[in-house]
Amino acid sequence: MHVIIDICVVPIGVGVSVSPHVAACQKVIGEAGLEHRLHAYGTNVEGPWDEVMAVVKRCHEVVHDMGAPRITTTMKISTRTDRVQHLDEKVASVTARTPERD
Amino acid sequence: MHVIIDICVVPIGVGVSVSPHVAACQKVIGEAGLEHRLHAYGTNVEGPWDEVMAVVKRCHEVVHDMGAPRITTTMKISTRTDRVQHLDEKVASVTARTPERD
Amino acid sequence: MHVIIDICVVPIGVGVSVSPHVAACQKVIGEAGLEHRLHAYGTNVEGPWDEVMAVVKRCHEVVHDMGAPRITTTMKISTRTDRVQHLDEKVASVTARTPERD
Amino acid sequence: MHVIIDICVVPIGVGVSVSPHVAACQKVIGEAGLEHRLHAYGTNVEGPWDEVMAVVKRCHEVVHDMGAPRITTTMKISTRTDRVQHLDEKVASVTARTPERD
Repeated sequence: MHVIIDICVVPIGVGVSVSPHVAACQKVIGEAGLEHRLHAYGTNVEGPWDEVMAVVKRCHEVVHDMGAPRITTTMKISTRTDRVQHLDEKVASVTARTPERD
Repeated sequence: MHVIIDICVVPIGVGVSVSPHVAACQKVIGEAGLEHRLHAYGTNVEGPWDEVMAVVKRCHEVVHDMGAPRITTTMKISTRTDRVQHLDEKVASVTARTPERD
Repeated sequence: MHVIIDICVVPIGVGVSVSPHVAACQKVIGEAGLEHRLHAYGTNVEGPWDEVMAVVKRCHEVVHDMGAPRITTTMKISTRTDRVQHLDEKVASVTARTPERD
Repeated sequence: MHVIIDICVVPIGVGVSVSPHVAACQKVIGEAGLEHRLHAYGTNVEGPWDEVMAVVKRCHEVVHDMGAPRITTTMKISTRTDRVQHLDEKVASVTARTPERD
C-alpha cells in the first residue's frame, strides 16, 4: 500500500526553538531514501506504508534521544486504490486548475 | 514506546455518510484489544507503538475493502519518555484544573 | 454556518506540563457558552462559525498571556449543508453501528 | 496577532477527485493577497489572524457553493509572541541545519 503523509513533529519541553529536532527528522527521512518535500509547517513523505511508518517511529526515537521528554506529532495519511499518485502530481493537479496569479 | 494517538479516518468517494466506515475502524480497534475512546471527531487509542500503528494500517485496509477508493486520515501522535500516561489521566489532569461549570 | 471543530492547543516553550494552558482554554470555551466535550487529545466544540472561531482566537491570546511564547494548534473543522449535526449525534451514528464489545 | 496556518480542505460527497475544490480554495487565498505556498497535502498561509481566518471561512463557503454537502478541514495554527516569523524563514531555519543530501 503506497502512502503519502504530511508530518509535523513537535518536541515539547525543549524550549522555543524546535528547528534542530525538525532538522534531525529531515535527516532520518532523507536517509530512508523516501521522496519528501519540506514546507513551512511539516514535511510531505511518500513511499510504501511500512517504510514510511518506520520513518515516523524513527523520528520519535531520534527526537527523544536528543532530549525531548515529550513529542506531539500531527500527521495526515493518504492512500488510494484507484491509482498511485506522487507528491508532484498532487501539486500539479491543483495548479493546473488555478489561475496564473497564484 | 508507549503511544497515545487521536485518529480520524475519512473515506473519500463513498458519498456523504461515512459512519459505516468509522464503525468498521472502531471494530478493528476494539478487536486489537487496545484502550480507546470514541469522540465526535475521532478516536483516542493507546498502547505499544507497533500495535497501535498496525491498527491504523488495518483501518486503511478495511476501509478500502469496503469500497472506498481514497482515504485521508488525520492523526496526532503523543509519546513521552518522562512517564507513561494513560487516556483517562490526560483528561483528569485538565479537569482537575477546570472550574466546575465546565 | 454551523461548525463542529476538534481543537488541540499546544504551548511551546513552557516546559513539559501543558495542562494549565489546556485548562485555561477549557475555561474560555466554557465561558463562551458553546457545547464542548474534552477528550484525551483535544476538545470538540460546536456552534456558529464566528463564535467558535472567536473562541479559538481567544485561546491563543490567553495562552500567550500565560507566558507561552509560541503555540501550535491542531484543528479539524466540519461543516455540512445537508443538515445540522450535533456532537452527540456524531458519536451515536457510529456507536449504533458498532458491536457491543466496543 | 500574526499567524501561520497549514490548511487542507477536504470536500466529502463529491466523488474521488477533489482538485477542483482545492483549486477554488487556492483562488480564494490568492485573491485575499496573503502569502501562501501550496504543497502536496495542504497550503501554508500567513498573515494577520482575522484576515487568515476570513479566508478559511470563505473556502468553506465556496466549496459548499460548488456542491459539496460536507467538508472536513485539517488545519494547524502557529502564533508566537517572541518574534514574527515568515513562511520562507521557517523552511530556511530547518534546511540550514540539514546535511546537503536533503
